[in-house]
Amino acid sequence: MPMIAAHMAVIGVGLIGGSFALAMRESGAVGAITGIDSDSGNLQTALDMGIVDRVATAPSEAVAEADIVFISTPVCSIIPIAKEIAPFLKPGCIVTDGGSVKELITGECEMAMPPGVFFVGGHPIAGTEHSGVAAAFPSLYRDRRCILTPSEKTPRHALDTISLLWQAAGAEVSVMEPGHHDRIFAEISHLPHIVAYALVHAVGSADVEGENVLSYTAGGFRDFTRIASSNPVMWRDIALMNRTAILKSIDSFSASLSELRERVENSDTEGLASFFTLAKKFRDGIL
Amino acid sequence: MPMIAAHMAVIGVGLIGGSFALAMRESGAVGAITGIDSDSGNLQTALDMGIVDRVATAPSEAVAEADIVFISTPVCSIIPIAKEIAPFLKPGCIVTDGGSVKELITGECEMAMPPGVFFVGGHPIAGTEHSGVAAAFPSLYRDRRCILTPSEKTPRHALDTISLLWQAAGAEVSVMEPGHHDRIFAEISHLPHIVAYALVHAVGSADVEGENVLSYTAGGFRDFTRIASSNPVMWRDIALMNRTAILKSIDSFSASLSELRERVENSDTEGLASFFTLAKKFRDGIL
Repeated sequence: MPMIAAHMAVIGVGLIGGSFALAMRESGAVGAITGIDSDSGNLQTALDMGIVDRVATAPSEAVAEADIVFISTPVCSIIPIAKEIAPFLKPGCIVTDGGSVKELITGECEMAMPPGVFFVGGHPIAGTEHSGVAAAFPSLYRDRRCILTPSEKTPRHALDTISLLWQAAGAEVSVMEPGHHDRIFAEISHLPHIVAYALVHAVGSADVEGENVLSYTAGGFRDFTRIASSNPVMWRDIALMNRTAILKSIDSFSASLSELRERVENSDTEGLASFFTLAKKFRDGIL
Repeated sequence: MPMIAAHMAVIGVGLIGGSFALAMRESGAVGAITGIDSDSGNLQTALDMGIVDRVATAPSEAVAEADIVFISTPVCSIIPIAKEIAPFLKPGCIVTDGGSVKELITGECEMAMPPGVFFVGGHPIAGTEHSGVAAAFPSLYRDRRCILTPSEKTPRHALDTISLLWQAAGAEVSVMEPGHHDRIFAEISHLPHIVAYALVHAVGSADVEGENVLSYTAGGFRDFTRIASSNPVMWRDIALMNRTAILKSIDSFSASLSELRERVENSDTEGLASFFTLAKKFRDGIL
Protein backbone atom coordinates (compact mmCIF):
# COMPACT_ATOMS: atom_id res chain seq x y z
CA MET A 1 0.00 0.00 0.00
CA PRO A 2 1.35 3.48 -0.81
CA MET A 3 2.16 5.69 2.14
CA ILE A 4 -0.75 7.96 3.02
CA ALA A 5 1.00 10.13 5.63
CA ALA A 6 4.71 10.59 6.34
CA HIS A 7 4.29 11.36 10.02
CA MET A 8 1.57 10.55 12.55
CA ALA A 9 1.30 11.59 16.18
CA VAL A 10 -0.71 9.38 18.53
CA ILE A 11 -1.87 11.11 21.71
CA GLY A 12 -2.79 8.44 24.26
CA VAL A 13 -0.97 5.24 23.26
CA GLY A 14 -3.23 2.64 24.86
CA LEU A 15 -5.18 -0.27 23.39
CA ILE A 16 -6.94 1.94 20.83
CA GLY A 17 -4.06 4.26 19.88
CA GLY A 18 -1.41 1.55 20.10
CA SER A 19 -3.39 -0.87 17.92
CA PHE A 20 -4.01 1.86 15.36
CA ALA A 21 -0.27 2.69 15.30
CA LEU A 22 0.58 -0.99 14.82
CA ALA A 23 -1.94 -1.33 12.00
CA MET A 24 -0.56 1.78 10.28
CA ARG A 25 2.97 0.46 10.58
CA GLU A 26 2.05 -3.02 9.36
CA SER A 27 0.15 -1.67 6.35
CA GLY A 28 2.77 0.90 5.45
CA ALA A 29 0.10 3.61 5.40
CA VAL A 30 2.12 5.84 7.73
CA GLY A 31 5.87 6.56 7.94
CA ALA A 32 7.15 7.75 11.30
CA ILE A 33 4.99 7.60 14.44
CA THR A 34 5.44 9.80 17.52
CA GLY A 35 3.67 8.83 20.72
CA ILE A 36 2.69 10.77 23.78
CA ASP A 37 0.94 9.51 26.88
CA SER A 38 0.30 10.82 30.37
CA ASP A 39 1.57 7.49 31.74
CA SER A 40 5.35 7.45 31.13
CA GLY A 41 5.65 3.73 31.88
CA ASN A 42 2.98 2.94 29.29
CA LEU A 43 4.77 5.19 26.79
CA GLN A 44 8.11 3.47 27.41
CA THR A 45 6.38 0.12 26.75
CA ALA A 46 5.08 1.51 23.44
CA LEU A 47 8.63 2.49 22.50
CA ASP A 48 10.07 -0.86 23.64
CA MET A 49 7.42 -2.74 21.66
CA GLY A 50 8.29 -0.73 18.54
CA ILE A 51 4.77 0.68 18.35
CA VAL A 52 6.07 4.24 18.16
CA ASP A 53 9.41 5.46 16.74
CA ARG A 54 9.84 8.21 19.22
CA VAL A 55 8.12 9.73 22.19
CA ALA A 56 7.43 13.30 23.12
CA THR A 57 6.96 14.81 26.54
CA ALA A 58 4.77 17.74 25.53
CA PRO A 59 1.84 17.62 23.09
CA SER A 60 3.25 20.68 21.32
CA GLU A 61 6.43 18.77 20.57
CA ALA A 62 4.58 15.60 19.56
CA VAL A 63 2.43 17.23 16.90
CA ALA A 64 4.80 19.81 15.34
CA GLU A 65 5.79 17.59 12.40
CA ALA A 66 2.61 15.54 12.17
CA ASP A 67 0.51 15.19 9.04
CA ILE A 68 -2.03 13.16 11.04
CA VAL A 69 -2.84 13.44 14.73
CA PHE A 70 -4.88 10.64 16.32
CA ILE A 71 -6.28 11.58 19.73
CA SER A 72 -7.05 8.29 21.48
CA THR A 73 -7.36 9.41 25.07
CA PRO A 74 -10.34 9.00 27.41
CA VAL A 75 -13.34 10.74 25.89
CA CYS A 76 -13.36 13.71 28.27
CA SER A 77 -9.75 14.64 27.39
CA ILE A 78 -10.21 14.85 23.64
CA ILE A 79 -11.56 18.41 23.47
CA PRO A 80 -8.99 19.89 25.94
CA ILE A 81 -6.16 18.17 24.04
CA ALA A 82 -7.42 19.40 20.68
CA LYS A 83 -7.43 22.95 22.08
CA GLU A 84 -3.98 22.50 23.60
CA ILE A 85 -2.30 21.24 20.43
CA ALA A 86 -4.12 23.54 18.00
CA PRO A 87 -1.47 26.35 18.02
CA PHE A 88 1.29 23.86 17.18
CA LEU A 89 -0.32 22.04 14.24
CA LYS A 90 1.22 22.58 10.83
CA PRO A 91 -0.98 23.62 7.89
CA GLY A 92 -2.45 20.61 6.11
CA CYS A 93 -2.50 18.50 9.25
CA ILE A 94 -5.62 16.41 9.80
CA VAL A 95 -6.69 15.66 13.36
CA THR A 96 -8.97 12.74 14.20
CA ASP A 97 -10.06 10.90 17.34
CA GLY A 98 -11.44 7.59 18.59
CA GLY A 99 -14.04 8.79 21.10
CA SER A 100 -17.39 7.07 21.51
CA VAL A 101 -19.34 10.35 21.71
CA LYS A 102 -19.26 12.48 18.58
CA GLU A 103 -21.52 15.54 18.46
CA LEU A 104 -19.84 17.56 21.21
CA ILE A 105 -16.33 16.42 20.24
CA THR A 106 -16.77 17.05 16.52
CA GLY A 107 -18.22 20.53 17.10
CA GLU A 108 -15.70 21.69 19.69
CA CYS A 109 -12.61 20.20 18.04
CA GLU A 110 -13.56 21.57 14.65
CA MET A 111 -13.89 25.06 16.14
CA ALA A 112 -10.52 24.72 17.87
CA MET A 113 -8.57 23.97 14.68
CA PRO A 114 -6.47 26.77 13.12
CA PRO A 115 -6.99 27.70 9.45
CA GLY A 116 -5.80 24.99 7.07
CA VAL A 117 -6.06 22.24 9.67
CA PHE A 118 -9.09 19.93 9.74
CA PHE A 119 -10.76 17.73 12.29
CA VAL A 120 -12.57 14.50 11.35
CA GLY A 121 -14.38 12.74 14.19
CA GLY A 122 -14.06 8.97 14.37
CA HIS A 123 -15.33 6.06 16.43
CA PRO A 124 -13.86 2.62 15.83
CA ILE A 125 -16.28 -0.07 17.10
CA ALA A 126 -13.62 -2.29 18.56
CA GLY A 127 -12.00 -3.05 21.86
CA THR A 128 -11.25 -5.83 24.27
CA GLU A 129 -11.64 -6.15 28.00
CA HIS A 130 -8.00 -5.10 28.38
CA SER A 131 -6.52 -1.63 28.29
CA GLY A 132 -3.04 -0.15 28.00
CA VAL A 133 -0.55 -0.41 25.16
CA ALA A 134 0.62 -3.89 26.23
CA ALA A 135 -2.81 -5.17 25.08
CA ALA A 136 -2.49 -3.51 21.62
CA PHE A 137 -2.40 -5.65 18.48
CA PRO A 138 -2.45 -4.72 14.78
CA SER A 139 -5.60 -6.62 13.80
CA LEU A 140 -7.88 -5.05 16.42
CA TYR A 141 -9.79 -3.15 13.72
CA ARG A 142 -9.83 -5.82 11.03
CA ASP A 143 -13.39 -6.36 9.78
CA ARG A 144 -14.70 -4.04 12.48
CA ARG A 145 -16.72 -0.96 11.72
CA CYS A 146 -15.28 2.56 12.09
CA ILE A 147 -17.74 5.44 12.00
CA LEU A 148 -16.51 8.83 10.77
CA THR A 149 -18.60 11.89 11.54
CA PRO A 150 -17.63 14.79 9.27
CA SER A 151 -19.53 18.07 9.44
CA GLU A 152 -20.63 20.30 6.57
CA LYS A 153 -17.30 22.10 6.87
CA THR A 154 -15.11 19.00 6.53
CA PRO A 155 -13.27 19.07 3.19
CA ARG A 156 -13.54 15.94 1.09
CA HIS A 157 -9.80 15.25 1.10
CA ALA A 158 -9.65 15.23 4.92
CA LEU A 159 -12.48 12.71 5.17
CA ASP A 160 -10.94 10.60 2.39
CA THR A 161 -7.53 10.53 4.07
CA ILE A 162 -8.89 9.38 7.43
CA SER A 163 -11.09 6.82 5.63
CA LEU A 164 -8.05 5.42 3.83
CA LEU A 165 -6.15 5.06 7.10
CA TRP A 166 -8.99 3.09 8.72
CA GLN A 167 -9.36 0.97 5.61
CA ALA A 168 -5.61 0.29 5.78
CA ALA A 169 -6.27 -0.99 9.34
CA GLY A 170 -8.82 -3.40 7.86
CA ALA A 171 -11.90 -1.52 9.11
CA GLU A 172 -15.14 -0.97 7.24
CA VAL A 173 -15.80 2.79 7.25
CA SER A 174 -19.30 4.24 7.72
CA VAL A 175 -19.96 7.96 7.50
CA MET A 176 -22.76 9.63 9.43
CA GLU A 177 -23.80 12.91 10.97
CA PRO A 178 -22.36 13.28 14.53
CA GLY A 179 -25.76 13.70 16.23
CA HIS A 180 -27.13 10.65 14.42
CA HIS A 181 -24.14 8.66 15.69
CA ASP A 182 -24.81 9.78 19.25
CA ARG A 183 -28.49 8.89 19.12
CA ILE A 184 -27.71 5.41 17.77
CA PHE A 185 -25.03 4.74 20.37
CA ALA A 186 -27.21 6.11 23.16
CA GLU A 187 -29.61 3.26 22.30
CA ILE A 188 -27.30 0.35 21.60
CA SER A 189 -24.39 1.07 23.92
CA HIS A 190 -24.93 3.87 26.42
CA LEU A 191 -28.44 2.78 27.49
CA PRO A 192 -27.42 -0.87 28.08
CA HIS A 193 -24.56 0.30 30.29
CA ILE A 194 -26.84 2.67 32.24
CA VAL A 195 -29.37 -0.15 32.68
CA ALA A 196 -26.72 -2.67 33.74
CA TYR A 197 -25.27 -0.25 36.30
CA ALA A 198 -28.76 0.54 37.64
CA LEU A 199 -29.62 -3.17 37.82
CA VAL A 200 -26.48 -4.12 39.72
CA HIS A 201 -26.98 -1.09 41.96
CA ALA A 202 -30.55 -2.18 42.76
CA VAL A 203 -29.82 -5.89 43.20
CA GLY A 204 -26.62 -5.23 45.14
CA SER A 205 -28.55 -2.94 47.50
CA ALA A 206 -31.47 -5.35 47.86
CA ASP A 207 -32.05 -6.73 51.34
CA VAL A 208 -34.24 -9.84 51.35
CA GLU A 209 -34.83 -10.63 55.01
CA GLY A 210 -31.32 -9.44 55.79
CA GLU A 211 -29.64 -11.63 53.19
CA ASN A 212 -27.27 -10.39 50.48
CA VAL A 213 -28.86 -11.80 47.35
CA LEU A 214 -25.71 -11.45 45.24
CA SER A 215 -24.37 -14.66 46.80
CA TYR A 216 -27.08 -16.56 44.90
CA THR A 217 -26.22 -15.23 41.46
CA ALA A 218 -25.22 -17.74 38.81
CA GLY A 219 -23.83 -17.56 35.30
CA GLY A 220 -26.82 -15.78 33.77
CA PHE A 221 -26.61 -12.83 36.12
CA ARG A 222 -22.85 -12.63 35.69
CA ASP A 223 -23.08 -12.53 31.91
CA PHE A 224 -25.93 -10.06 31.91
CA THR A 225 -24.14 -7.63 34.20
CA ARG A 226 -20.59 -7.97 32.87
CA ILE A 227 -20.73 -4.48 31.32
CA ALA A 228 -21.35 -2.99 34.79
CA SER A 229 -17.71 -3.86 35.48
CA SER A 230 -16.64 -1.27 32.89
CA ASN A 231 -14.56 1.75 33.87
CA PRO A 232 -16.80 4.05 35.97
CA VAL A 233 -14.87 7.18 34.96
CA MET A 234 -15.28 6.43 31.27
CA TRP A 235 -19.02 5.95 31.70
CA ARG A 236 -19.33 9.07 33.84
CA ASP A 237 -17.75 11.00 30.98
CA ILE A 238 -19.94 9.41 28.31
CA ALA A 239 -23.03 10.19 30.43
CA LEU A 240 -21.92 13.81 30.72
CA MET A 241 -21.05 14.15 27.03
CA ASN A 242 -24.06 12.43 25.46
CA ARG A 243 -26.56 13.61 28.06
CA THR A 244 -29.52 14.54 25.85
CA ALA A 245 -29.56 11.37 23.77
CA ILE A 246 -29.01 9.19 26.84
CA LEU A 247 -31.90 10.83 28.71
CA LYS A 248 -34.13 10.19 25.72
CA SER A 249 -33.09 6.53 25.53
CA ILE A 250 -33.63 6.06 29.29
CA ASP A 251 -37.14 7.50 28.92
CA SER A 252 -38.09 5.20 26.06
CA PHE A 253 -36.70 2.23 27.99
CA SER A 254 -38.66 3.29 31.09
CA ALA A 255 -41.82 3.42 28.99
CA SER A 256 -41.21 -0.16 27.79
CA LEU A 257 -40.53 -1.30 31.34
CA SER A 258 -43.69 0.40 32.62
CA GLU A 259 -45.71 -1.32 29.93
CA LEU A 260 -44.27 -4.68 30.94
CA ARG A 261 -44.76 -3.93 34.64
CA GLU A 262 -48.42 -3.17 34.01
CA ARG A 263 -48.86 -6.51 32.26
CA VAL A 264 -47.25 -8.28 35.24
CA GLU A 265 -49.46 -6.35 37.66
CA ASN A 266 -52.61 -7.20 35.70
CA SER A 267 -51.57 -10.87 35.28
CA ASP A 268 -52.11 -10.19 31.58
CA THR A 269 -51.31 -13.64 30.17
CA GLU A 270 -51.64 -12.67 26.51
CA GLY A 271 -49.92 -9.32 26.96
CA LEU A 272 -46.91 -10.87 28.70
CA ALA A 273 -46.52 -13.54 26.04
CA SER A 274 -46.71 -11.02 23.20
CA PHE A 275 -44.25 -8.63 24.88
CA PHE A 276 -41.68 -11.37 25.52
CA THR A 277 -42.21 -12.86 22.06
CA LEU A 278 -41.65 -9.52 20.30
CA ALA A 279 -38.52 -8.83 22.37
CA LYS A 280 -37.18 -12.31 21.61
CA LYS A 281 -37.85 -11.69 17.91
CA PHE A 282 -35.81 -8.45 18.03
CA ARG A 283 -33.03 -10.22 19.93
CA ASP A 284 -32.90 -13.28 17.71
CA GLY A 285 -32.78 -10.97 14.69
CA ILE A 286 -29.32 -9.75 15.69
CA LEU A 287 -27.80 -13.19 16.26
CA MET B 1 -24.06 -45.39 47.62
CA PRO B 2 -26.99 -47.29 49.14
CA MET B 3 -30.25 -47.14 47.27
CA ILE B 4 -32.48 -44.37 48.63
CA ALA B 5 -35.65 -45.17 46.69
CA ALA B 6 -36.64 -48.30 44.80
CA HIS B 7 -38.82 -46.58 42.27
CA MET B 8 -38.93 -43.02 40.92
CA ALA B 9 -41.35 -41.47 38.45
CA VAL B 10 -40.18 -38.49 36.41
CA ILE B 11 -42.97 -36.38 34.96
CA GLY B 12 -41.52 -34.27 32.15
CA VAL B 13 -38.36 -36.00 30.94
CA GLY B 14 -36.49 -33.03 29.45
CA LEU B 15 -33.10 -31.53 30.25
CA ILE B 16 -33.91 -31.14 33.97
CA GLY B 17 -35.83 -34.38 34.55
CA GLY B 18 -33.66 -36.45 32.21
CA SER B 19 -30.41 -35.25 33.81
CA PHE B 20 -31.81 -35.96 37.28
CA ALA B 21 -32.79 -39.48 36.18
CA LEU B 22 -29.31 -40.07 34.73
CA ALA B 23 -27.66 -38.83 37.93
CA MET B 24 -29.89 -41.08 40.05
CA ARG B 25 -29.09 -44.05 37.86
CA GLU B 26 -25.34 -43.33 37.82
CA SER B 27 -25.17 -42.90 41.61
CA GLY B 28 -27.33 -45.90 42.34
CA ALA B 29 -29.58 -43.77 44.56
CA VAL B 30 -32.70 -44.92 42.74
CA GLY B 31 -33.72 -48.33 41.37
CA ALA B 32 -36.29 -48.33 38.59
CA ILE B 33 -37.30 -45.13 36.81
CA THR B 34 -40.58 -44.56 34.99
CA GLY B 35 -40.89 -41.59 32.67
CA ILE B 36 -43.84 -39.70 31.32
CA ASP B 37 -43.84 -36.76 28.95
CA SER B 38 -46.43 -34.95 26.85
CA ASP B 39 -44.07 -35.24 23.87
CA SER B 40 -44.08 -38.92 22.86
CA GLY B 41 -41.02 -38.51 20.61
CA ASN B 42 -39.07 -37.03 23.49
CA LEU B 43 -40.19 -39.86 25.75
CA GLN B 44 -39.13 -42.50 23.21
CA THR B 45 -35.70 -40.84 23.08
CA ALA B 46 -35.49 -41.07 26.89
CA LEU B 47 -36.25 -44.77 26.66
CA ASP B 48 -33.80 -45.31 23.78
CA MET B 49 -31.06 -43.47 25.70
CA GLY B 50 -31.68 -45.68 28.73
CA ILE B 51 -32.60 -42.68 30.86
CA VAL B 52 -35.86 -44.31 31.95
CA ASP B 53 -36.62 -48.03 32.29
CA ARG B 54 -40.19 -47.77 31.20
CA VAL B 55 -42.65 -45.19 30.07
CA ALA B 56 -46.23 -44.55 31.02
CA THR B 57 -48.98 -42.97 29.01
CA ALA B 58 -51.04 -41.63 31.91
CA PRO B 59 -49.71 -39.90 35.02
CA SER B 60 -51.89 -42.19 37.16
CA GLU B 61 -50.09 -45.20 35.74
CA ALA B 62 -46.64 -43.60 36.03
CA VAL B 63 -46.88 -42.83 39.73
CA ALA B 64 -48.74 -45.86 41.11
CA GLU B 65 -45.57 -47.68 42.23
CA ALA B 66 -43.40 -44.66 42.85
CA ASP B 67 -41.61 -43.91 46.12
CA ILE B 68 -40.42 -40.62 44.66
CA VAL B 69 -42.13 -38.46 42.03
CA PHE B 70 -40.11 -35.68 40.39
CA ILE B 71 -42.27 -33.16 38.52
CA SER B 72 -39.95 -31.44 36.06
CA THR B 73 -42.39 -29.87 33.66
CA PRO B 74 -42.77 -26.19 32.72
CA VAL B 75 -43.50 -24.21 35.87
CA CYS B 76 -47.17 -23.55 35.11
CA SER B 77 -47.93 -27.29 34.79
CA ILE B 78 -46.56 -28.38 38.17
CA ILE B 79 -49.63 -27.58 40.28
CA PRO B 80 -52.17 -29.10 37.85
CA ILE B 81 -50.04 -32.25 37.59
CA ALA B 82 -49.68 -32.56 41.37
CA LYS B 83 -53.47 -32.36 41.65
CA GLU B 84 -53.94 -34.88 38.86
CA ILE B 85 -51.61 -37.52 40.30
CA ALA B 86 -52.59 -37.06 43.96
CA PRO B 87 -55.32 -39.73 44.04
CA PHE B 88 -52.92 -42.34 42.64
CA LEU B 89 -49.95 -41.84 44.96
CA LYS B 90 -49.15 -44.63 47.38
CA PRO B 91 -48.69 -43.86 51.09
CA GLY B 92 -45.11 -42.87 51.91
CA CYS B 93 -44.50 -41.41 48.48
CA ILE B 94 -42.58 -38.12 48.40
CA VAL B 95 -43.29 -35.68 45.56
CA THR B 96 -40.83 -32.97 44.59
CA ASP B 97 -40.38 -30.56 41.68
CA GLY B 98 -37.80 -28.47 39.86
CA GLY B 99 -39.72 -25.25 39.30
CA SER B 100 -38.07 -21.84 39.60
CA VAL B 101 -41.00 -20.31 41.55
CA LYS B 102 -41.67 -21.84 44.94
CA GLU B 103 -44.22 -20.13 47.20
CA LEU B 104 -47.30 -20.79 45.07
CA ILE B 105 -46.13 -24.26 44.03
CA THR B 106 -45.15 -25.39 47.52
CA GLY B 107 -48.42 -24.18 49.03
CA GLU B 108 -50.74 -25.60 46.38
CA CYS B 109 -48.94 -28.91 45.93
CA GLU B 110 -48.72 -29.51 49.64
CA MET B 111 -52.47 -28.98 49.97
CA ALA B 112 -53.13 -31.36 47.08
CA MET B 113 -51.29 -34.31 48.63
CA PRO B 114 -53.33 -37.12 50.22
CA PRO B 115 -52.62 -38.15 53.82
CA GLY B 116 -49.25 -39.89 54.25
CA VAL B 117 -47.82 -38.37 51.07
CA PHE B 118 -45.53 -35.34 51.26
CA PHE B 119 -44.45 -32.59 48.91
CA VAL B 120 -40.99 -30.98 49.10
CA GLY B 121 -40.43 -28.02 46.74
CA GLY B 122 -37.10 -27.87 44.95
CA HIS B 123 -35.21 -25.60 42.57
CA PRO B 124 -31.94 -26.83 41.09
CA ILE B 125 -29.86 -23.85 39.91
CA ALA B 126 -28.61 -25.47 36.76
CA GLY B 127 -29.44 -25.57 33.09
CA THR B 128 -27.96 -25.05 29.68
CA GLU B 129 -29.17 -23.20 26.63
CA HIS B 130 -30.54 -26.50 25.30
CA SER B 131 -33.77 -28.25 26.20
CA GLY B 132 -35.26 -31.69 25.67
CA VAL B 133 -34.03 -35.06 26.89
CA ALA B 134 -31.40 -35.35 24.15
CA ALA B 135 -29.52 -32.55 25.94
CA ALA B 136 -29.61 -34.34 29.32
CA PHE B 137 -26.38 -35.45 31.01
CA PRO B 138 -25.70 -36.93 34.46
CA SER B 139 -23.33 -34.23 35.73
CA LEU B 140 -25.66 -31.28 35.11
CA TYR B 141 -26.13 -30.78 38.85
CA ARG B 142 -22.60 -31.52 40.02
CA ASP B 143 -21.32 -28.69 42.23
CA ARG B 144 -24.46 -26.67 41.49
CA ARG B 145 -26.82 -25.47 44.16
CA CYS B 146 -30.25 -26.99 44.70
CA ILE B 147 -32.65 -25.08 46.91
CA LEU B 148 -35.31 -27.02 48.81
CA THR B 149 -38.26 -25.14 50.26
CA PRO B 150 -40.03 -27.19 52.93
CA SER B 151 -42.93 -25.71 54.86
CA GLU B 152 -43.69 -26.05 58.56
CA LYS B 153 -45.70 -29.17 57.73
CA THR B 154 -42.90 -30.99 55.90
CA PRO B 155 -41.71 -33.98 57.96
CA ARG B 156 -37.99 -34.20 58.50
CA HIS B 157 -37.64 -37.57 56.73
CA ALA B 158 -39.21 -36.21 53.53
CA LEU B 159 -36.81 -33.27 53.42
CA ASP B 160 -33.87 -35.54 54.23
CA THR B 161 -34.75 -38.02 51.49
CA ILE B 162 -34.98 -35.35 48.80
CA SER B 163 -31.76 -33.76 50.10
CA LEU B 164 -29.96 -37.10 49.81
CA LEU B 165 -31.13 -37.53 46.22
CA TRP B 166 -29.80 -34.11 45.22
CA GLN B 167 -26.56 -34.75 47.05
CA ALA B 168 -26.29 -38.04 45.15
CA ALA B 169 -26.55 -35.94 41.97
CA GLY B 170 -23.57 -33.91 43.21
CA ALA B 171 -25.55 -30.81 44.16
CA GLU B 172 -25.06 -28.63 47.22
CA VAL B 173 -28.42 -28.42 48.98
CA SER B 174 -29.70 -25.19 50.58
CA VAL B 175 -32.92 -25.06 52.52
CA MET B 176 -35.03 -21.93 52.72
CA GLU B 177 -38.57 -20.70 53.20
CA PRO B 178 -40.50 -20.67 49.85
CA GLY B 179 -41.30 -16.94 49.96
CA HIS B 180 -37.69 -16.09 50.74
CA HIS B 181 -36.64 -18.13 47.72
CA ASP B 182 -39.06 -16.24 45.51
CA ARG B 183 -37.91 -12.82 46.72
CA ILE B 184 -34.26 -13.73 46.12
CA PHE B 185 -34.92 -15.11 42.64
CA ALA B 186 -37.12 -12.14 41.76
CA GLU B 187 -34.00 -10.01 42.28
CA ILE B 188 -31.24 -12.11 40.76
CA SER B 189 -33.06 -13.91 37.97
CA HIS B 190 -36.58 -12.70 37.25
CA LEU B 191 -35.75 -8.97 37.34
CA PRO B 192 -32.74 -9.31 34.98
CA HIS B 193 -34.94 -11.16 32.49
CA ILE B 194 -37.70 -8.54 32.76
CA VAL B 195 -35.11 -5.78 32.27
CA ALA B 196 -33.45 -7.53 29.33
CA TYR B 197 -36.80 -8.06 27.60
CA ALA B 198 -37.78 -4.42 28.22
CA LEU B 199 -34.41 -3.20 26.94
CA VAL B 200 -34.55 -5.20 23.73
CA HIS B 201 -38.18 -4.15 23.29
CA ALA B 202 -37.22 -0.47 23.63
CA VAL B 203 -34.08 -0.59 21.50
CA GLY B 204 -35.70 -2.79 18.88
CA SER B 205 -38.58 -0.31 18.61
CA ALA B 206 -36.30 2.74 18.54
CA ASP B 207 -36.38 4.80 15.37
CA VAL B 208 -33.37 7.10 15.01
CA GLU B 209 -34.09 9.19 11.92
CA GLY B 210 -35.74 6.19 10.30
CA GLU B 211 -32.83 3.84 10.90
CA ASN B 212 -33.08 0.46 12.68
CA VAL B 213 -30.42 0.80 15.33
CA LEU B 214 -30.14 -2.95 15.93
CA SER B 215 -27.96 -3.22 12.82
CA TYR B 216 -25.23 -1.33 14.72
CA THR B 217 -25.13 -3.63 17.72
CA ALA B 218 -21.85 -5.35 18.51
CA GLY B 219 -20.73 -8.07 20.91
CA GLY B 220 -21.49 -6.12 24.09
CA PHE B 221 -25.15 -5.66 23.25
CA ARG B 222 -25.47 -9.27 22.15
CA ASP B 223 -24.00 -10.59 25.40
CA PHE B 224 -26.03 -8.23 27.54
CA THR B 225 -29.31 -9.18 25.90
CA ARG B 226 -28.77 -12.92 25.42
CA ILE B 227 -31.29 -13.75 28.17
CA ALA B 228 -34.00 -11.95 26.18
CA SER B 229 -33.78 -14.92 23.79
CA SER B 230 -35.17 -17.18 26.52
CA ASN B 231 -38.46 -18.99 26.11
CA PRO B 232 -41.26 -16.34 26.21
CA VAL B 233 -43.84 -18.83 27.51
CA MET B 234 -41.63 -19.83 30.41
CA TRP B 235 -41.09 -16.19 31.37
CA ARG B 236 -44.76 -15.40 31.00
CA ASP B 237 -45.48 -18.17 33.50
CA ILE B 238 -42.78 -17.07 35.93
CA ALA B 239 -44.11 -13.49 35.74
CA LEU B 240 -47.61 -14.75 36.51
CA MET B 241 -46.49 -17.05 39.33
CA ASN B 242 -44.05 -14.74 41.14
CA ARG B 243 -46.00 -11.55 40.46
CA THR B 244 -45.72 -9.82 43.85
CA ALA B 245 -41.97 -10.28 44.31
CA ILE B 246 -41.29 -9.35 40.68
CA LEU B 247 -43.32 -6.14 40.96
CA LYS B 248 -41.34 -5.21 44.06
CA SER B 249 -38.02 -5.88 42.34
CA ILE B 250 -39.08 -3.87 39.27
CA ASP B 251 -39.95 -0.96 41.55
CA SER B 252 -36.63 -1.00 43.37
CA PHE B 253 -34.81 -1.20 40.04
CA SER B 254 -36.88 1.71 38.71
CA ALA B 255 -35.91 3.74 41.76
CA SER B 256 -32.21 3.07 41.07
CA LEU B 257 -32.66 3.96 37.42
CA SER B 258 -34.47 7.20 38.33
CA GLU B 259 -31.67 8.13 40.68
CA LEU B 260 -29.13 7.56 37.92
CA ARG B 261 -31.27 9.41 35.37
CA GLU B 262 -31.42 12.41 37.68
CA ARG B 263 -27.64 12.44 37.97
CA VAL B 264 -27.34 12.34 34.17
CA GLU B 265 -29.90 15.15 33.82
CA ASN B 266 -28.09 17.31 36.39
CA SER B 267 -24.66 16.56 34.86
CA ASP B 268 -23.74 15.49 38.39
CA THR B 269 -20.09 14.54 37.86
CA GLU B 270 -19.48 13.28 41.39
CA GLY B 271 -22.85 11.57 41.66
CA LEU B 272 -22.37 9.69 38.39
CA ALA B 273 -18.88 8.52 39.35
CA SER B 274 -20.01 7.30 42.77
CA PHE B 275 -23.07 5.50 41.34
CA PHE B 276 -21.03 3.69 38.67
CA THR B 277 -18.23 2.92 41.14
CA LEU B 278 -20.60 1.38 43.69
CA ALA B 279 -22.30 -0.72 41.00
CA LYS B 280 -18.93 -1.89 39.69
CA LYS B 281 -17.93 -2.81 43.24
CA PHE B 282 -21.09 -4.93 43.61
CA ARG B 283 -20.48 -6.55 40.22
CA ASP B 284 -16.79 -7.24 40.76
CA GLY B 285 -17.68 -8.79 44.12
CA ILE B 286 -19.47 -11.67 42.39
CA LEU B 287 -16.69 -12.49 39.92
